[in-house]
Amino acid sequence: MIQIIKNPAVDTWKLLLQRPAIDTTRLFSVVEPILDAVREKGDEALIAYEQQFDHVLLETLQVTTEEIKEAITKIPHQLKEAITQAKRNIQKFHEAQEAEMPYMEVIPQVRCWQKRVPIQKVGLYIPGGTAPLFSTVLMLAIPAQIAGCEEIVLCTPPNKEGKVPDAVLFAAQLCGVTKIFKIGGAQAVAAMAYGTESVPKVYKIFGPGNQYVTAAKQLVSLKEVAIDMPAGPSEVAILADAAARPKYIAADLLSQAEHGVDSQSILFTVDEGLIDTVLSELETQLDLLPRKDLAKKALENSKIIFIPKIEDAISMVNEYAPEHLIIMTKNYTVVGERIVNAGSVFLGDYSPESAGDYASGTNHTLPTNGFAKAYSGITLDSFTKKISFQELSRDGLMMLSNAIEIMAEHEQLMAHKNAVEVRLERVYREEEDDLSWRH
Amino acid sequence: MIQIIKNPAVDTWKLLLQRPAIDTTRLFSVVEPILDAVREKGDEALIAYEQQFDHVLLETLQVTTEEIKEAITKIPHQLKEAITQAKRNIQKFHEAQEAEMPYMEVIPQVRCWQKRVPIQKVGLYIPGGTAPLFSTVLMLAIPAQIAGCEEIVLCTPPNKEGKVPDAVLFAAQLCGVTKIFKIGGAQAVAAMAYGTESVPKVYKIFGPGNQYVTAAKQLVSLKEVAIDMPAGPSEVAILADAAARPKYIAADLLSQAEHGVDSQSILFTVDEGLIDTVLSELETQLDLLPRKDLAKKALENSKIIFIPKIEDAISMVNEYAPEHLIIMTKNYTVVGERIVNAGSVFLGDYSPESAGDYASGTNHTLPTNGFAKAYSGITLDSFTKKISFQELSRDGLMMLSNAIEIMAEHEQLMAHKNAVEVRLERVYREEEDDLSWRH
Repeated sequence: MIQIIKNPAVDTWKLLLQRPAIDTTRLFSVVEPILDAVREKGDEALIAYEQQFDHVLLETLQVTTEEIKEAITKIPHQLKEAITQAKRNIQKFHEAQEAEMPYMEVIPQVRCWQKRVPIQKVGLYIPGGTAPLFSTVLMLAIPAQIAGCEEIVLCTPPNKEGKVPDAVLFAAQLCGVTKIFKIGGAQAVAAMAYGTESVPKVYKIFGPGNQYVTAAKQLVSLKEVAIDMPAGPSEVAILADAAARPKYIAADLLSQAEHGVDSQSILFTVDEGLIDTVLSELETQLDLLPRKDLAKKALENSKIIFIPKIEDAISMVNEYAPEHLIIMTKNYTVVGERIVNAGSVFLGDYSPESAGDYASGTNHTLPTNGFAKAYSGITLDSFTKKISFQELSRDGLMMLSNAIEIMAEHEQLMAHKNAVEVRLERVYREEEDDLSWRH
Repeated sequence: MIQIIKNPAVDTWKLLLQRPAIDTTRLFSVVEPILDAVREKGDEALIAYEQQFDHVLLETLQVTTEEIKEAITKIPHQLKEAITQAKRNIQKFHEAQEAEMPYMEVIPQVRCWQKRVPIQKVGLYIPGGTAPLFSTVLMLAIPAQIAGCEEIVLCTPPNKEGKVPDAVLFAAQLCGVTKIFKIGGAQAVAAMAYGTESVPKVYKIFGPGNQYVTAAKQLVSLKEVAIDMPAGPSEVAILADAAARPKYIAADLLSQAEHGVDSQSILFTVDEGLIDTVLSELETQLDLLPRKDLAKKALENSKIIFIPKIEDAISMVNEYAPEHLIIMTKNYTVVGERIVNAGSVFLGDYSPESAGDYASGTNHTLPTNGFAKAYSGITLDSFTKKISFQELSRDGLMMLSNAIEIMAEHEQLMAHKNAVEVRLERVYREEEDDLSWRH
C-alpha cells in the first residue's frame, strides 16, 4: 500500500522524490534493428512486424475511407457528443495560444519580425492496449489542425482482427488527421521518421507509448526528426491542507494509479490529520474499481508526505516537478502562484485531473519524470516554428555597421566584416588605404 | 572550388541538397566515459580533463570576480560599445517575444489559462578555438535574462594560461550570467547536466560546439536535461535573380565559408548570367581573406544551382530548409512570404547575414542540417516553460461531467470517472442503484 512519510529532513527530499528509474536507452539495441529494417525494406518490414507484434496479417496499412465511415456510424451517439464537446473546448483554448508575433524597427531602418509557420508534416502516435485512447487523438490533432500542418499522419496498432477502435477513427476524422495507419510500436515510429511506400516521412513525431516507442522516438530524434518530449509513466501530486476533502483526494490518487503499475501519486499534506482519513477513503474507493489490482500495485510506488509548513511543501512540489498538480488548500490561488515546476495545475475542490484529461480545454500531453523543470506540455507552439526575418535599408546597415564590423573583427571573421563593407562600398576605399581592415 | 549545377530535375533535388553526413552518434562511445567520470568524480574529473584536453592545470574552475573586473578594464572601449549596442538591439527584439498568455472561461465556470515561467537553471556552452565567440554569449544570455532564469551558468574552455577571453567575460557580465566556469568540451556538458561540487546542475543546456560537445548534449538529453537543438555545421542559402548584385552574393557566400571547412553555402539563382559574375567576384574577394585557405575548402562543399523558374527555386529552398536564407530578388517581400522552412531570413540588398549574426536584434542560434523543418531558432520561449492552470466551480464541473464520464468510461478508466462523481456526490446515489457505473 501507499507509503507514509512524516516531516522529512530537507536533505532527504531528493531521494524521497526520486521516480522509479526507467532507462529506455537500454532498449536501444532492441529497437535499432527494427528501425533499420523499416528504413531499408519499408512497407514489407512494417507488415512483417505487425504480424509478429500485433498478430495480424494486414493487406494494406492505411485505414480506408470506408473503414472510417463505418466507425462513425457505429460509434454510440452519446460518445460522439462527448468527444465533440471536448473538441470544442480543447480547440477554444488552443486557438487562444495563437500569440501575436513581434514586428519592430529595432532602430530606424532595421526591421525585424517573426513569422509563425506550421510544421508541414507531423506524425501522431496513439498507443493501443486495453482501451482506445481517443482522448489523446484530440489532444494532438486539434493543435496540429489549428497550426495548419499540411500532413497529419496517425499511427496506431490494430487488434488481431486488423481493426482500429471506432472512437479513434471518429476523433481522427473530426480533427483533420490526413492519413491513418495500422502500425504500432517502434516500427510505427520508424515508418514516420523515414517514410515508406505507404507512410509519408514527417518532420516531428508526437504521442505517448510504451518503453519501446519511447526508445524509438529517442533514437530517431538523434538524427532524423524532432519529437515532442521524453515520455515516462504518468504521475500526480496533490498539495492539501485541512480544508481539503479526503474523499476527493483519494479519488484523484486512484485516478492516477489506475493508469498502470508504474504510475506514481504523491500527496503532500500540511495537515497530519488528513493521512488517516485519506487512507480509509482509499480503501473504500479502491474496492469499487474494476482495475483495483493494478491500482493497488501502483499505490505501492506512491506516497503520502506530511510536511508541516506550507512553504516547505511548495518547495518540495517544485523540486518534484509533477506532471499534474492538484492544489486543494484554503488559499489555492496564492499557492498556485508559487508553482514554478509542473505540467498542468488544477485548483480547488472541483478541478479533478479528469477534467483536464478529457474536456476542460487544456492539453493532457505533459512532461513527466521531472521534465516539467525544462519542458512545457503540448501547446500550439509544439506544431509550429518561428522564423525570424529582417530587412535593413542601406541607412539601417550603415547605423549598425560599426558594431558589426568591430565584433566581426574581434571574432576574427573578416568575411563577415567584408559583407558589410562591400555593401557600403568601403572595401575599395580601404584597399587604397593599404587594406587596413586586414589583420 | 564551388560546384555549378544547372537546371536539375526535380527527382535529383533530394540528393543534390544533401548535407555532408555528420553522424555524432558514432562519437557516443568516446563521449560516454567522459560523462561517467564527471558524474562519479565531479570536479576532480573536470580538472583532469582540462589538463588533458585544454593543456592547463586549473586550481579553481570558476572564473573569479577579480578576473571579470580585470577583463572589463582590459577590453577595448570600441568593442565594449559595439557589444553594448548589439545587446540593446537583441534585448529589444527578444523582449517583444513576451507574448500574452491566454486566459479564458472555456465554458462558464471553467477557467483555463497558461503561465509562462522561466526555466530556473540554464547552462550556456560557449566554444573556444581560434576566436572568442562573445556574440554567442549575447544570443544565449540575453533571452535567459529576460526570461528571468535564476541561475545562468556559462562554461567555456580556457586557454593554456587558464584564461577565458576578456570579451566573453564582459558579455557574460553585461547579460547577467551568474557563474562562469573554465571547462570545455564534453566534460562541460557533463558538469552542467549532473552538477559537481563547483558547477550547479542545470535543467537545460544551450549553445554550439564541436562534434564531441554535440554528442555529449545528445547523450545527456536522453535522460537528464533538455537541450536547445541538435547542432551541425553552419550554412547559408542565397536566393537571387537578375536584380541581385554579384559582389554582395560573393561576400555572403564567403562569410559563411569562413566559419569552417564543413560550412555550406548554396546560391539558388533564376538568372544564369549570375553564375559567371559571382564566380569572378568570389575569386577577387577570396584572395583578400586572412582565412582564405579554410574558406576555399568550405566552398568545395558549396554549390551554385541555376533553376529557371522562381516557383521551383522557392520549392527547392523550402526543401533544403537552410539555417540562414538571404533573398536578393526584385520582389523579395513576396518571395519571403513563401518561405516555410528556414531558420532566419534576410531580405534585400542591405541585409547581410552578418547583421543578424551580431547586432540587428534577431538570434543567431538557429537550426542547421535541415532541422529548420521542425525547429525554431532560439527565442525567449527557449528559456521558459508554459504551465497550464484550470479552476472549475462545482457548476463548471457539472457542465463538463457528462463528457468526462462518458469518455472515461469508454477509455476504461473508471477511477477518472469516479473523481468527478465523488465531487458531484453521485457515486453514493448510484451505489444504491446497484453500482450501475461499473462494467
